[in-house]
This record gives sequence, C-alpha cells and structure tokens, in this order.
Amino acid sequence: MSAPHQSVAVIGAGDFIGAAIVRKFADEGFAVHAGRRNGEKLVPLLGGAVTGRSLDARQSEDVAAFLDEAEAIAPLALVVFNVGANVQFPIAETTDRVFRKVWEMACFAGFAAVREAARIMAPRGRGKIFVTGATAGLRGNPGYAAFAAAKAGLRLMAESAARELWPQGLHVAHLVIDAGVDTEWVRARVSERIGADALAAQPDLLMPPEAVAQAYWSLYTQPKSAWTFEQVIRPYGETW
Amino acid sequence: MSAPHQSVAVIGAGDFIGAAIVRKFADEGFAVHAGRRNGEKLVPLLGGAVTGRSLDARQSEDVAAFLDEAEAIAPLALVVFNVGANVQFPIAETTDRVFRKVWEMACFAGFAAVREAARIMAPRGRGKIFVTGATAGLRGNPGYAAFAAAKAGLRLMAESAARELWPQGLHVAHLVIDAGVDTEWVRARVSERIGADALAAQPDLLMPPEAVAQAYWSLYTQPKSAWTFEQVIRPYGETW
Amino acid sequence: MSAPHQSVAVIGAGDFIGAAIVRKFADEGFAVHAGRRNGEKLVPLLGGAVTGRSLDARQSEDVAAFLDEAEAIAPLALVVFNVGANVQFPIAETTDRVFRKVWEMACFAGFAAVREAARIMAPRGRGKIFVTGATAGLRGNPGYAAFAAAKAGLRLMAESAARELWPQGLHVAHLVIDAGVDTEWVRARVSERIGADALAAQPDLLMPPEAVAQAYWSLYTQPKSAWTFEQVIRPYGETW
Amino acid sequence: MSAPHQSVAVIGAGDFIGAAIVRKFADEGFAVHAGRRNGEKLVPLLGGAVTGRSLDARQSEDVAAFLDEAEAIAPLALVVFNVGANVQFPIAETTDRVFRKVWEMACFAGFAAVREAARIMAPRGRGKIFVTGATAGLRGNPGYAAFAAAKAGLRLMAESAARELWPQGLHVAHLVIDAGVDTEWVRARVSERIGADALAAQPDLLMPPEAVAQAYWSLYTQPKSAWTFEQVIRPYGETW
Repeated sequence: MSAPHQSVAVIGAGDFIGAAIVRKFADEGFAVHAGRRNGEKLVPLLGGAVTGRSLDARQSEDVAAFLDEAEAIAPLALVVFNVGANVQFPIAETTDRVFRKVWEMACFAGFAAVREAARIMAPRGRGKIFVTGATAGLRGNPGYAAFAAAKAGLRLMAESAARELWPQGLHVAHLVIDAGVDTEWVRARVSERIGADALAAQPDLLMPPEAVAQAYWSLYTQPKSAWTFEQVIRPYGETW
Repeated sequence: MSAPHQSVAVIGAGDFIGAAIVRKFADEGFAVHAGRRNGEKLVPLLGGAVTGRSLDARQSEDVAAFLDEAEAIAPLALVVFNVGANVQFPIAETTDRVFRKVWEMACFAGFAAVREAARIMAPRGRGKIFVTGATAGLRGNPGYAAFAAAKAGLRLMAESAARELWPQGLHVAHLVIDAGVDTEWVRARVSERIGADALAAQPDLLMPPEAVAQAYWSLYTQPKSAWTFEQVIRPYGETW
Repeated sequence: MSAPHQSVAVIGAGDFIGAAIVRKFADEGFAVHAGRRNGEKLVPLLGGAVTGRSLDARQSEDVAAFLDEAEAIAPLALVVFNVGANVQFPIAETTDRVFRKVWEMACFAGFAAVREAARIMAPRGRGKIFVTGATAGLRGNPGYAAFAAAKAGLRLMAESAARELWPQGLHVAHLVIDAGVDTEWVRARVSERIGADALAAQPDLLMPPEAVAQAYWSLYTQPKSAWTFEQVIRPYGETW
Repeated sequence: MSAPHQSVAVIGAGDFIGAAIVRKFADEGFAVHAGRRNGEKLVPLLGGAVTGRSLDARQSEDVAAFLDEAEAIAPLALVVFNVGANVQFPIAETTDRVFRKVWEMACFAGFAAVREAARIMAPRGRGKIFVTGATAGLRGNPGYAAFAAAKAGLRLMAESAARELWPQGLHVAHLVIDAGVDTEWVRARVSERIGADALAAQPDLLMPPEAVAQAYWSLYTQPKSAWTFEQVIRPYGETW
C-alpha cells in the first residue's frame, strides 16, 4: 500500500465520535493525526496511517503545532474540530470558572483550529474545516447557559469563517448532532427510560459513532459547486 | 441486467434538476417514474428504467395515481417533489390568481405528494420523501411575497410531516438550493454580471444539476440512525 | 368628544383577541371598523367609534371594500389581520379541502389584507399593517401540516411585504402569540392539567386578550426610526 | 419629589444608548446606578436620581458589588447590560487576545450581569434583566468571527437564562439593534454614502438613542402575562 497523499487532523479524538472519524478517514486512505487531552487514551487508534498525541486544544500554539505536524506528514486536506464540553448547571451555580472553561474548550479552541487550519490551507485555495456542534448552539435551554453560549459562539464563529473562507476555496462546515450517540452510558439511560425490550426492538434509535463519521465523509465528498454549511443529523425516532 | 427492485417517483421532472435526479437514480439501479406538466418534454429521458407521463401536480388524484403507477412497477422507495414556481412581483402587482397559483404549484402540490407517498409507504414503515425548497422559503424578500409564502408553507408542511412520519420510519427531508443552477440562461446572466472570462476561470461558481442529484443521493443513503431533515447547498462562491 | 381623525380596520374581530384590539384602539381615540365572518356576533362591540359588518376575508374584493369603508370614515392608520384557522389532523386525515381552506383563511386572506391596505396607504407614505401569527408559523409540528404551512406562508408573505413596504413608510409587523389566550375554554383545560388551585395561584399564567391588544398598541406607537418586524409574546410561565 | 422606590442598574452606560437608557428611567422615576469603564465620562449624567462609577464589567465581583450598590439605594427592578465590543478583522488577523477580549466584554460580562442580578431578584420572584444584542449575534458575517461568536454566546446565554428564570418571575430579554445609532460619526458615514441632502430629507433613517431607550421602556412595561424574549428594532429604511 502506498503512502497517503493527504492528511486529516482530528482535534478532540475522543472515544466515540472522534475515534470513528479517525477510523473512517484512515480507511479511506488518509494519513490521520489525532489529538486529545489525554494522549495515552489514543493508543488503541494508533498505528498504520494513524498518528497522534496529547493536545491541549485551548492553547492555540499547540493547535498550530499539531496542524503543522499533520501537514508535514502529507498536505492537510481536512481538519475536524470535535472537542466536547457538555455541562449542565442552573445559572446560580454556574461559576465564572465553569463558564470560562466551557467557552475555552468549545468555542475558543474551535476558533484556534479554524484560524490555524486556514493559515495552512488558504495559500493553496483548497481544504476543509469541519466543526462538531450541538443542538444547544441553536437554542438556549434551562441549565445550559454555559454550554449553549459556547456552542452558539462556535457556530457563528464557523459561519463567519465560512462566509469569509468559502470564496477562497475552503469548505468550513458545522455538523449538529441532535441525539445521544450510542455508548454504553447512553444506552443504559435510554433503556431505563423506555425499557430494554423497546430499545432492543429499535436498533436505530441511538446514533452509532460510525453514522456521524459517515456524515462527515459525505460532507467531505461534496463538490465545490454544492457545499453545505450546516447539517443536523438525528436518529429517526428522535423528537425535535 | 435484472429488473429494478425498487422505484423512485419524481414529480416535477424538469429539464435540469428534475432530469438529473431521474438519471442519477436510474443509474443507481432504480425504476424511475417521471412526471411533469408537459409530458412530451420527457421524451429524452424515457427508456430503459425510466417511465413517465404528463402530470398535473396540483391535482391530488393525479398525484395519487402517478405514485400508484410507480408502486406497481416496483415498491416505491423514494418520492421527490421538485415543482418550481419562481415568480417575482411587487405586492401591488401580485394578483389573487398569481398568489393562488404559485401556492398550488409549490405548496399544495407538495402536500399532496407527501400525503400520497405516506399512504403507500407508511404501512411498511419504510420510504423516503424529499422536497426541493428554496432560500425564499427561509426568509421573505421584496418582490417575493407569493413565492416566499408558498415555499415557506412547503417547508413547514414538510417539517410537520417529518416530525410525524420519521417515527414511523419515513424519511421526509427538505433540500434548499441557494443558487442558480447551471443552465444556459443562468450562465448568460452571470457572464453579463462578472464577465465571461471570470466565469470561465471559476467553473464551480454555478451549480450543475448533477450536484443537486448527488445531494439527493447522499440523503438517500443516510442510515436510519442519522437522518437530516434540512440541507442547504450552494456553490463555494455564493454569498449568503 | 370630537370625531376620530384616523381609522383602524380589524379583519377577524373575534370574541377574544380581535375584540380586545377593537376596544383598545377605540379607547385610544380611533374610529374602528370591525369585520368577522358572522357579523351579528359583532353587536356587543358596535356603537360609539366602532362600526362593523360581516366580512369574508378570503374574498379579496370584500377585503378591499371593507378597507375602503374604513378609509371613508377617517384616513386608515392601521389594518390588523387577525383571522384564526387552527386545526389539527394527522397528514393522512388532512384532506385537500382542509389544507386549502386553512390556507385561504390564514394566508391568502392575510395577503389580500396587506395588498389592499398598501393600496390605500402607500400613496401617502404612511400606515401600519399588523398581522397575528402563531408559533406554528415558526416551526412545523406533528398534526399541524395544514396550519403550520398556512401560518408560515403568512409570516414570509409579511416579511416580504415588510421589506418592500417599510422603505415606503408602511410599518408591516408580525406578532406571534405563543400561548393559549385566557378564555373559559382554555382556562378549563389548563385547570384540568395543573389543578384549579395552582391556576388560581398564578393569575398571569394565561394571556388575557387585553395583553395582546396592549402589545399591538406598543407596536403602533414605535417611532419610524425604530420599528420591529416580529415580536413573540408569551406568559412568564409558558415553556418554549 | 419623593425618593425613588425602585432602582435600575445600567452596565455599559456609554455616551449614546446607555446614556439614553439612564435618562429615560430616571425620567420615569427610578434611581439609576450607571457604570462604565471610564467613570469620569459619566459626569454629565450624574446628579438627581442618577449615581454612577467606573466599572469593569468583565470582573464578576465588581459587577456583583455594583448591583448590590443599586439594591442598597432602592430595590433593584431592572438591570440593563449594554456593553459593546464591535471589532472587525479577517480570521487570519484575529488574535487570541482579540477573540478573548471581545468575548469577555460582550458575553462573559453579560453572563455575570445576569447571574448577579438573578441572585438579588430571584428570592423575591420579581425583576427584569435586559441585554443589548446585535445582528451579529443572529448570523455570522465575514470579518466578524470574534464579534459574532461573542454576541451569539450572549444571546443563547440570555435565552437559557430566560427559560430558567421566567418561571421564577424574572423577565430576561434580548434586544437586537439592527442599525447604526444616530451619532455624529455614523451620520458622517451615512452622509458620505447617500449624500447630505438625502440624509437631511429622511430624518428617521438613523436610530436616535432615545428610540432604543423607548424600546427598553416598552419591554419594561409588558405585563407578566405577555412577555417578549427577543425584539429586533431597526429604522424604516434599513434593509435586512
């Protein structure tokens, strides 16, 4: 097998969605560079076309270095920003520290990823920057002042960037995942709510991480003449 | 080659987007049944896996019969509603007749398509119903009172239907095309505006009908665990 | 008391919101011309500065004549379109007739009101046209395909009209009422749901028609340098 | 004249909108406590029912102390958050420092204001917290990555807070001002663009600060049974 001709950088390569994106693009023939807070947890992903390391996405210098590493492996075709920061507190219990930290992880880090990706991609007028959003970024909810503010900031930062960078050939997109992704923990909670039998009878009620990775792949393959900025995905049984 | 196992019905199989959708799904192995106001214009599309006839989409009985015909060929997997009705008039010059007719074509006909498709698909808990929307359905614009009202009605009819029918296994989606599709007429107008050389230098500035067909195909292939209700597509150089 | 110098026409002067608007503007010194399907029900409102008659808002000629009558009383300062059409059916049970009739009442009639009001007001570059919307016009809901389509059409017709007519000095606005208005029937239902004592303890949980009338009055008094197109009102205890 | 029975705190009492809000509520009989970065610029406002001081709205302890001061004067009826932070840079030139500072001023400071206002108001189940937003918080724009992210965060923080605090009797609202407010600087720019004569002929084309203050007053007077969360105001001649 020949060496990959293009690289993908995944910022926030967590156990579920992030890992599925890493695997999908590796399978499609890309060199994938994966970063997450605790790099040791990346071990199961590493090897073959996948490299990775610990990354503090809130430090823009670290983000810049991480993307330069991917570019050094092969020209950077795609940056995925997938850092989560979901917390829930009533306003009164949302401390300065929580509000700030959630923003640093979910919004500031995303901005740094977009800016540093564009720094590498803009000169060649080609590249893609995809950002994982959340329903909380579309609409405020009780208990979500910090998370909604951060995700809304991420979303409009991404839209501002898209409207600036699309004409330069860079596809910036915002993917909203409106459901719990299928993990043991989510499965246990849904099972409690609707019953284990009902859940077993509806295998597509939860969203497997692979489905999210597939959605990113579809965005990646869009022709330049028909790009999508924002796409919401949810399982067929999810209410909205 | 074996007979197709599933059928697709395209209501509004016009020269550009509609025709491209017909060809795409025929290429992918479906029997495609195509309808448009003037059936004789369908001739270049017909043959092989493609059938078709004149269809007045504003008559729900005709829509019902048309979908029954597709179902008789092979189980109906997808209905595409793609009837256009773009007109532009100041409020004062928008006659009752215009306002009503645009609604009948762009909204009522879409409702009939959704209802009749669901009649066939709901009993088996499987099927897809995709609707072509327009930016005008998202936001009112001077001169577009009739068109925006009709397309906004189509959009919220589709969202109401999606929220009712998704849990029954039917994927209702609304695809917004935010650009002129690449036709001779659009090409000539854009060429006048930005110059022929500038247009020649940016071949992806206009959206080829095939790109829209590809977007429908991507929606079609979404897994049940990660469906999209609404997707906007526009060329990289389009402003929004 | 001197004769009013300006008139207000209320299309859809029903028992609750419509009647409250009629009373409010009469109290503020306007001649008010009130129309509703069954004119005999207007009797309790008539007298003093209030005139009225039966009106079929779906007939644009009748709307035109009705507004001309108001203009003949005194220069027409405001037209309120307040026709309701709330129905709920699953898609499969939404007949052609229902879908069409709801649209005629909630959307087409609103368009006719806007066009005919603008016909009178545009030549003098001054006037206001306010439209009563519903949450259903913002977002589709299961069971509301017909109502949501009609109200969404009304909303984007109004936005198109606003963007065309504001620069001509006509204030077109869309008021969304996101709650049951306080009527005996709504009160009984809420009482069943939360208990009579809980309801008695929270007198502002339901929206009195007078509060809606007050919201229209606030819109009416906005200076030309700071107009609002859309305003949602809901009681403090309403969820959204 | 008797002492005011209620106080209003204005965070971000700048020369134009902020000052107009201070004057309006003082005129309506409230004690008004005004804060802005450079307290010495408050001098023209002070006296009578108006007090004030330098305030760093990005320091939540300072915000808390400022609101406690207002409460000590008279029970705090309304907090207005009106800190601006409009900057414009391409993505590549938006430094970490700019992105962070704009967020601290426009979003974090707003969160602190809401939380600390609610701390005082929630125990008595009554109070109002109004936040000045911007069009940038509704939609991303090229050059506005930092400002749009901050204002979008402010907006969804406010919506989250509204949905949590309305049922507790606190009216949280978000007022969007979609136009340049009439200042010498804006007037000069518009004059350049459309000509001094055209501007003179259309005195309402610019939004006087008093019109914004009036909009806040209208929100303040809404009955508990018909509150508005979000209101956009723009001059009649503004396009959107």
